[in-house]
Amino acid sequence: MGGLSRGGGSTLTEQLAEHYAQRIRQRLLAPGTRLPSVRDAARRHGVSPHTVVAAYDQLLAQGLVEARRQRGFFVRDRRTPELRPAMPRAAPAGPPLPPVDATALIRGMFHSGTDQPAPGLGTLPLEWLDPALMSTALRRVLGQTEGALALQYGQPAGDLRLRQALALRLGGLGLQASADQIVTATGATHALDIVSRALLAPGDAVLVDEPGWAVEFARLTQLGMRLLPVPRGADGPDLAVLETLAREHRPRLYVTISVLHNPTGNSLTPAGAYQLLRLAEQHDFRVVEDDTYGELAPAHLPRLAALDGLQRTLYVSGFSKILTPGWRVGFVAAPPSLIERLIDVKLLSTLTTPAILEQALAYCLEQGSLRRHVERVHARLDAARQRSVQLALAHGCRFVTPPQGLFGWVDTGVDTEALAQRLHDQGWLLAPGHLFHASRRPSTLMRINFATSQDARFWRAFDRACGR
Amino acid sequence: MGGLSRGGGSTLTEQLAEHYAQRIRQRLLAPGTRLPSVRDAARRHGVSPHTVVAAYDQLLAQGLVEARRQRGFFVRDRRTPELRPAMPRAAPAGPPLPPVDATALIRGMFHSGTDQPAPGLGTLPLEWLDPALMSTALRRVLGQTEGALALQYGQPAGDLRLRQALALRLGGLGLQASADQIVTATGATHALDIVSRALLAPGDAVLVDEPGWAVEFARLTQLGMRLLPVPRGADGPDLAVLETLAREHRPRLYVTISVLHNPTGNSLTPAGAYQLLRLAEQHDFRVVEDDTYGELAPAHLPRLAALDGLQRTLYVSGFSKILTPGWRVGFVAAPPSLIERLIDVKLLSTLTTPAILEQALAYCLEQGSLRRHVERVHARLDAARQRSVQLALAHGCRFVTPPQGLFGWVDTGVDTEALAQRLHDQGWLLAPGHLFHASRRPSTLMRINFATSQDARFWRAFDRACGR
Repeated sequence: MGGLSRGGGSTLTEQLAEHYAQRIRQRLLAPGTRLPSVRDAARRHGVSPHTVVAAYDQLLAQGLVEARRQRGFFVRDRRTPELRPAMPRAAPAGPPLPPVDATALIRGMFHSGTDQPAPGLGTLPLEWLDPALMSTALRRVLGQTEGALALQYGQPAGDLRLRQALALRLGGLGLQASADQIVTATGATHALDIVSRALLAPGDAVLVDEPGWAVEFARLTQLGMRLLPVPRGADGPDLAVLETLAREHRPRLYVTISVLHNPTGNSLTPAGAYQLLRLAEQHDFRVVEDDTYGELAPAHLPRLAALDGLQRTLYVSGFSKILTPGWRVGFVAAPPSLIERLIDVKLLSTLTTPAILEQALAYCLEQGSLRRHVERVHARLDAARQRSVQLALAHGCRFVTPPQGLFGWVDTGVDTEALAQRLHDQGWLLAPGHLFHASRRPSTLMRINFATSQDARFWRAFDRACGR
Repeated sequence: MGGLSRGGGSTLTEQLAEHYAQRIRQRLLAPGTRLPSVRDAARRHGVSPHTVVAAYDQLLAQGLVEARRQRGFFVRDRRTPELRPAMPRAAPAGPPLPPVDATALIRGMFHSGTDQPAPGLGTLPLEWLDPALMSTALRRVLGQTEGALALQYGQPAGDLRLRQALALRLGGLGLQASADQIVTATGATHALDIVSRALLAPGDAVLVDEPGWAVEFARLTQLGMRLLPVPRGADGPDLAVLETLAREHRPRLYVTISVLHNPTGNSLTPAGAYQLLRLAEQHDFRVVEDDTYGELAPAHLPRLAALDGLQRTLYVSGFSKILTPGWRVGFVAAPPSLIERLIDVKLLSTLTTPAILEQALAYCLEQGSLRRHVERVHARLDAARQRSVQLALAHGCRFVTPPQGLFGWVDTGVDTEALAQRLHDQGWLLAPGHLFHASRRPSTLMRINFATSQDARFWRAFDRACGR
């Protein structure tokens, strides 16, 4: 990563321009950042100053950077799109945009071009997944009559067979929901999006966990909501702060991950869950329980929606974290009185969801092949976690919360944004702490993925980048 | 349809309750509508009054109807969800909701349980599709290494192979767009949703065609936009009205179907397209060209995005109307300066889209199997249109615009909302005119699908329902 090669399809100038263009697009170089001086860049990449100037010119032509007289090249703020000649007047200002970095981490997840493990990854690595499980299910469904039916628009609520299998599965968590209380979506993200749009109006206040999932912050912000961050510590959300916020701002909703919270990995205690539901009732807000990581959790952990009987809670989950991120099958289970409204918003956003993938997933659930896969992943993750924790501790990291599930939330003692940039140049993807905050702030924390942080090479690179 | 059967899995009471519940859910019985008197219902369904009372009690228990003293049972307005005992205070009022009927038609599209053709259908009927084409493509992709890769999150912009195939295809329409200018989505509806959210803020004014596609009206309304309906006649949009609206309301966007408009079936002329783009430039709004029906159109029709060179226009399309509605693959092609913003909104709404379906579609495009299928559908549709037009004319309908493409827009001379309810009871799905208007109004118009309006039985039932 970062090395330029002579020969091959593109010139050194093009390679260098692409090197910076990629970082700008992924927002690893934030708007306003100054590019290295021509001399520095030439030395760093082992090319002539002329090549650097030509590469910077290409970036300028692509609208990615701007030149400031005598000061050098700076990354442009692309939130204000360049006015094209065809647009004589000022372009519309557009809706509120997500925080600059909000999509940086997600874009990083799609980063390919290196075979190094990615400690900042938000999912299981590809080699932990089971392609045969999925393709068997898909072939099976194609061979059935349902395969042809999947050519039509599916049911508005989602494939009935899948919803029945999901209802059974939720029963195993103590959550009594009928198939009629379930609406499928294009992944849990889409389910959360449907819920936000069905229950909230612009200007509404929403409680969120902080640190928390950047996409959730960004989506709510983009929809015009006011975020009310609830500090999330080793014991779960700070309920005293939550109560104050609820009293002062009258939020409509609290979006929270109760089990294996991202990024801290911790889970709500039974007592905390009970108190939280009491607060929701007193202050009349609904709770969206995002159980995206639920499949990776020990079975005994309590779910808010199970305690509450899906009265004031909505339950969202999906299969990206256990089966495959690429199938994009998620769902929401909700009180019966909200189902029609959720289906309406789903129809308005995507009409329906691909029935063939939902049927294949139903097959996996019915046949028990998902359950067996979950067991294998649990065993493997337990071993990986043990090894990753030892390595992290040995390399000077401190765990802010006890390590559980897929993610560790560690204090590195150095600024992790700068660290992420340095390590990215060497092909290591990090998830620096500032990405998990609703408003930008420096952080020495980072999230590590236990499945992808077992490589001693990474930890050596980490030490060097920390200056240790 | 509508007949109750003795024996079998459910009682007559349950069947009758479900008969009405289904109509209420599909909003064929609108909020406020009075259910038939017990005596009338008993006679109509051939059951005892006791059975009707028991069925209405079930509907009451389900919260679908309310009893008004001495007046009977009325369909409840479920936009204000019932307050459950767990909710001591008033439930949040929630965001602006779509017009009551906005989703009625789409829900009708998912209507099954009858093998009669549905003259109100919005797509090709199932038997016109080619399941083998799709399953072959899917099996092929599963057998390739890409199949395994589809387990990961796909590229944020969508599968590269599909975007390249789409770019080639757009080139055939004279629309020069690189793969980098294309973002895939969960169907064209999702693409339109992404565009609305990326370019508009609540309160913005948006030009739309009227009559037009109910889902588009409902989505924009739900997002808090102000609709500015532009009358759509046989010559395309009324540009004089459009200009006045643009001057007075300064809209940011015009969402329009330029080719084979839904429901009128007409297409923009080259001169109209040129004038429209001039107006867009003068009044500084962007144009979203929804080309959902483009595959069914003669090749020579001009596309706004091709004329404009994708500067001020965005081009949206999908494959629901030609290949299969159930796969939910659509896309938007846009000016380069908007791509990052569109990808961000896509990430916030669904993260990515299912790569395996996108790769299978790319295979269909690359192999030419889609092209051959399109040719077969064109020939079949031409014959069906000829026959349906003859039948419609013979049964007293008048075509408001010359018949083209998939849809005919006809004047029946009677109120089509009442007509739709009567025919629905006999298992015939209609698309009455009021569903295509931004605000509710009586209409004698309806949209017929040429592929599904060739059945003489339907036209006889139509005559009877019209009282002819």
